[in-house]
Amino acid sequence: MPELRRDPIIGRWVIIAAERGKRPYDFIIEKDKTKGGFCPLCPGNEAITPPEVLAYGRPNHAPNGPGWKLRVVPNKFPALIIEGELDKRGEGIYDKMNGIGAHEVIIETPNHSETLATMPTDQLSMVFHAYKDRIIDLTRDERFKYIIVFKNYGRSAGASLEHSHSQLIALPIVPQIIQEELDGCLRYFDYKERCVFCDIIRQEQQQNLRIIEENEEFITLSPFAPRSPFEMWVLPKRHQSRFTSVDDWQLANLSELFSSTMKRLSKALPNVPYNFMLHTAPIRDSKLEHYHWHIELMPKLSTAAGFEWGTGFHINTVPPEEAAKILREQSL
Amino acid sequence: MPELRRDPIIGRWVIIAAERGKRPYDFIIEKDKTKGGFCPLCPGNEAITPPEVLAYGRPNHAPNGPGWKLRVVPNKFPALIIEGELDKRGEGIYDKMNGIGAHEVIIETPNHSETLATMPTDQLSMVFHAYKDRIIDLTRDERFKYIIVFKNYGRSAGASLEHSHSQLIALPIVPQIIQEELDGCLRYFDYKERCVFCDIIRQEQQQNLRIIEENEEFITLSPFAPRSPFEMWVLPKRHQSRFTSVDDWQLANLSELFSSTMKRLSKALPNVPYNFMLHTAPIRDSKLEHYHWHIELMPKLSTAAGFEWGTGFHINTVPPEEAAKILREQSL
Repeated sequence: MPELRRDPIIGRWVIIAAERGKRPYDFIIEKDKTKGGFCPLCPGNEAITPPEVLAYGRPNHAPNGPGWKLRVVPNKFPALIIEGELDKRGEGIYDKMNGIGAHEVIIETPNHSETLATMPTDQLSMVFHAYKDRIIDLTRDERFKYIIVFKNYGRSAGASLEHSHSQLIALPIVPQIIQEELDGCLRYFDYKERCVFCDIIRQEQQQNLRIIEENEEFITLSPFAPRSPFEMWVLPKRHQSRFTSVDDWQLANLSELFSSTMKRLSKALPNVPYNFMLHTAPIRDSKLEHYHWHIELMPKLSTAAGFEWGTGFHINTVPPEEAAKILREQSL
Repeated sequence: MPELRRDPIIGRWVIIAAERGKRPYDFIIEKDKTKGGFCPLCPGNEAITPPEVLAYGRPNHAPNGPGWKLRVVPNKFPALIIEGELDKRGEGIYDKMNGIGAHEVIIETPNHSETLATMPTDQLSMVFHAYKDRIIDLTRDERFKYIIVFKNYGRSAGASLEHSHSQLIALPIVPQIIQEELDGCLRYFDYKERCVFCDIIRQEQQQNLRIIEENEEFITLSPFAPRSPFEMWVLPKRHQSRFTSVDDWQLANLSELFSSTMKRLSKALPNVPYNFMLHTAPIRDSKLEHYHWHIELMPKLSTAAGFEWGTGFHINTVPPEEAAKILREQSL
């Protein structure tokens, strides 16, 4: 059973998920492990993954066979497990609980060589639909407080499989970075009675220095204080605190803009590894006037080292105004 | 001039230090750049580095020549620069200031192939002495609020030079992670009237599950909620809020214990890349009853990916009790 442990000073939680029988030197060797040719996420290999929890594009066929356009399956090596009670408890001054949660893999396409930058917009639209469907379904589990959707693309960004996929983790606590965002947004709202993200969109539209592109419903921009070169945020223009409130018109706009943004990134920095994270309100909160859901996209172009670990500061060698200009000027 | 920018939501600061003339694809290529044979930190090449600010072991010779046992020089490619005013200012809802600070390199040994695990204890003692001397000297600059000492060892932990060195950055603000630590320690102190780190040491000594080793003045342990496999903390047993309060007796004990800890790490995980960070009280604060300086050592065995970036959570596959046991059982 994985265990959730809380650092007694900062309150940072970690998941201790032991891989038994591993010896120390295995860690070093593992890094250079090469990928085999076999792909467990490709059509025909459905039996290799745990049974699917969602599939699109296969209305008249049995589950867990081919013919699907998108599939969601539990992670075969989950960081958290779905069965059990939280059993919160202390150990002297320390706090811990059982590692209860859901860990799912969204297989974004049946096509092994497709990426978010190359897939058709309607395929990308299915990906966002699947995020929404899975969050709504998992929200019914009363043990969960937060659901994070994220994607690791490329080995140095943490991906262990090549086939285009994203992941979802449902957590029994609201994670620290989300809580810091919520607190920061609330402080701003208490002072100004406005959402800070709405104000950011307004100022960016006035300054027009860091916008990469926009359509009727969404905007892609380089944030003012980006942690990494070419970091991008994709935001809904309407104030909306949770991703699951998006309607079909918004999803169509999001897919169109996101597709174009991924094409720009892939033209400016071919094959660059990246991570993206969907930040949305905690699932038990009601509609929040001060919080605005968004996607944070971080190309992996630098290594967090001692300075970053020790301070939380980041050193970024590309001003966001330059990054935005480069991305804006790509011809698609 | 580098620029410090503050994220308007979380309050996270970033350093925007543009490397001019770099084109996007340079980022991708740079990753595979190989090191040349020439070492700018080796004796005989003193003219390559900026003029030294400190040197040990060369009392009767001119500065910036050979004969030294340890040298401290300004970083040739600094993240922050020493000349100028902070000039704090706004840009609409955003905050920024000039990137004023000091960025120095501690060349730990004249011997290119020596590491912290192989160097004699009295050489390691000079390294800690140099940290103390440089922090005391830079504290006199009224513009600085925090000084962080850190080390990146190995390419994947962010080191660009092989020759054993650590770094120091003096900052005009107290960084977010340090502030979170200070806040957490103060909350604990307000409730218990005790230092949380002192309580951690006491509990670890009672439980004896996560201690790696200790001597009269210092203790090395695996923290209860480690972010990475084999993370270690080195703490003074006396309550002491700032590193610069250490006396010579303590420094001798620290060098002895740290040397042994580095040998254990290097035996358990040969050549593992790592980062360490010296966490001490902000330089303008008086003695703090609630804060306890310490060194955090993180072997680089995993990649922070979307989940970690998106939540601040960490997934650790080695329970600290197992890591401590493995490190404790190494024969030195």
